[in-house]
Amino acid sequence: MEKKFVEELTSQKEDFSKWYTEVVLKADLVDYSPVKGCMVIKPYGYAIWENMQRILDEKIKATGHVNAYFPLFIPKSFLEKEAEHVEGFSPQVAWVTKGGDEELFEPLAVRPTSEAIICSMYSKWIQSWRDLPVLINQWANVVRWEKETRPFLRTTEFLWQEGHTAHRTFEEAEEEALRMLNVYKDFVENDLAIPVIAGRKTENEKFAGALHTYSIEVLLADGRALQAGTSHNLGQHFAKAFDIMFQDVDGERKYVWQTSWGVSTRLIGALIMTHGDDYGLVLPPRVAPYQIVIIPIWKSETDKTKVYNYVDEIYEVLRKYFRVKVDKDEEHTPGWKFNEWELKGVPVRVEIGPKEVEKQELYVARRDLRIKMSIKRENMVQDLENLLRDIQKTLFEKALRFREENTYEIDNFEEFKRIMDTKRGFVKASWCGDGECELKIKELTGATIRNIPLDWKEEEGKCILCGKETKIKALFAKAY
Amino acid sequence: MEKKFVEELTSQKEDFSKWYTEVVLKADLVDYSPVKGCMVIKPYGYAIWENMQRILDEKIKATGHVNAYFPLFIPKSFLEKEAEHVEGFSPQVAWVTKGGDEELFEPLAVRPTSEAIICSMYSKWIQSWRDLPVLINQWANVVRWEKETRPFLRTTEFLWQEGHTAHRTFEEAEEEALRMLNVYKDFVENDLAIPVIAGRKTENEKFAGALHTYSIEVLLADGRALQAGTSHNLGQHFAKAFDIMFQDVDGERKYVWQTSWGVSTRLIGALIMTHGDDYGLVLPPRVAPYQIVIIPIWKSETDKTKVYNYVDEIYEVLRKYFRVKVDKDEEHTPGWKFNEWELKGVPVRVEIGPKEVEKQELYVARRDLRIKMSIKRENMVQDLENLLRDIQKTLFEKALRFREENTYEIDNFEEFKRIMDTKRGFVKASWCGDGECELKIKELTGATIRNIPLDWKEEEGKCILCGKETKIKALFAKAY
Ligand SMILES: [Zn+2]
Ligand SMILES: [Zn+2]
Repeated sequence: MEKKFVEELTSQKEDFSKWYTEVVLKADLVDYSPVKGCMVIKPYGYAIWENMQRILDEKIKATGHVNAYFPLFIPKSFLEKEAEHVEGFSPQVAWVTKGGDEELFEPLAVRPTSEAIICSMYSKWIQSWRDLPVLINQWANVVRWEKETRPFLRTTEFLWQEGHTAHRTFEEAEEEALRMLNVYKDFVENDLAIPVIAGRKTENEKFAGALHTYSIEVLLADGRALQAGTSHNLGQHFAKAFDIMFQDVDGERKYVWQTSWGVSTRLIGALIMTHGDDYGLVLPPRVAPYQIVIIPIWKSETDKTKVYNYVDEIYEVLRKYFRVKVDKDEEHTPGWKFNEWELKGVPVRVEIGPKEVEKQELYVARRDLRIKMSIKRENMVQDLENLLRDIQKTLFEKALRFREENTYEIDNFEEFKRIMDTKRGFVKASWCGDGECELKIKELTGATIRNIPLDWKEEEGKCILCGKETKIKALFAKAY
Repeated sequence: MEKKFVEELTSQKEDFSKWYTEVVLKADLVDYSPVKGCMVIKPYGYAIWENMQRILDEKIKATGHVNAYFPLFIPKSFLEKEAEHVEGFSPQVAWVTKGGDEELFEPLAVRPTSEAIICSMYSKWIQSWRDLPVLINQWANVVRWEKETRPFLRTTEFLWQEGHTAHRTFEEAEEEALRMLNVYKDFVENDLAIPVIAGRKTENEKFAGALHTYSIEVLLADGRALQAGTSHNLGQHFAKAFDIMFQDVDGERKYVWQTSWGVSTRLIGALIMTHGDDYGLVLPPRVAPYQIVIIPIWKSETDKTKVYNYVDEIYEVLRKYFRVKVDKDEEHTPGWKFNEWELKGVPVRVEIGPKEVEKQELYVARRDLRIKMSIKRENMVQDLENLLRDIQKTLFEKALRFREENTYEIDNFEEFKRIMDTKRGFVKASWCGDGECELKIKELTGATIRNIPLDWKEEEGKCILCGKETKIKALFAKAY
């Protein structure tokens, strides 16, 4: 039974991309919709997002931000106010041109991001230095017309949060941009168990309209990079375009300094591609919809009563501490259920048969290492708490080890090219700082500079392509 | 100071509609956006919505539902599948006709409600009676192109939750529609402190595409009714249009029975118009962003230190039990702050001056009755808990009394007309059941049948308009 079931899932080695598509569908995370490039996030997938939202929202509020909601639609003329911004986004905009039976005088963009609409309000709200800083976040859907889409990683519509702040000085904006980058790093590493590299984007790769952009980058199991979150110092670009001015302490009218930052449902893709294995999803306990699934096992009706009673008793205790599911479905065999819940990535499976009842034990399987052990009923809460904590930690360490094993420090362009053509991974290499060089490297190898990591020290070296002397070390990878 | 400030707010009696507009703007709940009919929900307004969401989401989940997310866009052909549905909604649809530079082959509706897209998925997901019931809810934004808009009550874009369920039998769907109507009634009455009348809509007033619709109706302070939530038994209308069939226990293929139900940010409007007074908002403690605001009062610097220390100490205790704000802003006088937080409807204000420090007391003002009292520091948590509970209860009772005083049982059409022309209110009157009569009454009086209340017994009577014998008593009102 187990064998047959597992055979249905393509192995990661065989075809990672196919494995991913199969997992997201079979684990009931998403489904394709009749609208091109838009996905349906099914209840099990959405529950992961709800857990992420709850945790991240708390961190965003703890750093002094409040939530608000701005309109979905942005008048065309507003989107066009900031030149780089409109250039970057207009090829991706969905346009509303008709309301009811009436043709609109001015088309409305379905927000691809909300800088333009939010800045138009800030110019009204901000008058004095006393109104600063403005620290607002929004949870919303956004739309970017994409040619090629993949569930979670790139879809026409997606869910995200976008923070938009305004400050008195450049320094405050810079501090804020870095603060939120660190909030993301903390969240992704500690709650999603995914190690990230935080750094600054190059001019070529920065956000359309930003002064500069920071990102956190993840190395996925197939050796590709995924940008998991970004934080932008917008400088005064939008302030000037939208006339956001304040009277400063010195009496002078000045433009504000702004930031924006966001993470999206794309993080679910990062989660799957970092921790998943040939048996399916592996979810970190902090965000798993169910942390524990209990499966009763019985043959005779007498056993069934005994087992169900015991299961009900332990469930009543465990549900106070954990997110627990009891699978009493009688259509399927225990073996089928084992596979099903492994596929769905539940961190801990508890099997309860007559033997466990008799011994007052729980037979416990951890999803990450696929090992089993018995624990005593009397210690179960503490033992399960420790187990979940250990799974969370082990997942992070495993992912970190993988990243370390797949990060190469290289000073030879041919070797660089060979790595990108074969196993891929992160490459640390010297770069002269020239955007032309960067684009040429992309053309020749498919790799882009993911970012200039913040904690990499300056080091003498020669640009991997042109050989010019430089102190910059950049993080290269093929990206999703 | 107080007088001047209060004069700025139009009184309810003078012009209720103007009062409403002023309150939502001055209390910082919303702002108008550059997009016609779309509002910005500002942080203070959004915090009310977040509290509502948290409480209602819990109730929706406790009744067995799970959340999911479906696409914002609905292909035109899908919206057209159910005839009544498209007829009801198409005048209000915003259409996306262009994506990037490409003209779309088929226009996409920005969802005015999600039956069409969700049903298209259900037809794929549901195969057997074992797949039923499907109990899914979604929190989302929707767009309805409106000619006249008012903040919260009617806006082009608004936020809501929409439940969509599928069942084996008519009876199960009917039970579900009524269950969710009761969840709404419980939520609106117990958490928002707004009494509602639950009943069934007439054929003229039901949801476009439903078999029948239930609603909860609120009587607002200006004598108008507001539909605060609806729950529809969709019958098999959508199942037939979207081919949602299942193999039943008896082996036969049958159409499912469906429901849908929703409440929206409109509830914030109901809240304001039910509890507000000439001093501004009055928020029920269960959903108030801050339940308690603490205002330190001092003149000398010595007093300031003493007062601030005391305030910090009690804040550290109170924040563990309540949502508390300390207003240390030194730009404004205590008097200004009193007015400001009254305007914002915070249920309890705590004033702390040197006298309170000395006596180890808190000087407490309740927003609803505008009365003040001293409480002992040592009992403060218990006393404030009781006070907040009493405010919640008092607000409900006051609103209930208002409704009772403004509900008229009438059997004379001239009197009916006179009431609708003057003070308005709820009218209980006999109705023959004929839709023509209903429309004629609307034409002559401006009043519509809000619903046929579920707990009103059948009573012999004569139709208020045509005089025909009937047993139906209907709830009439002028509605928003
Ligand atoms: Zn170079
Ligand atoms: Zn009649």
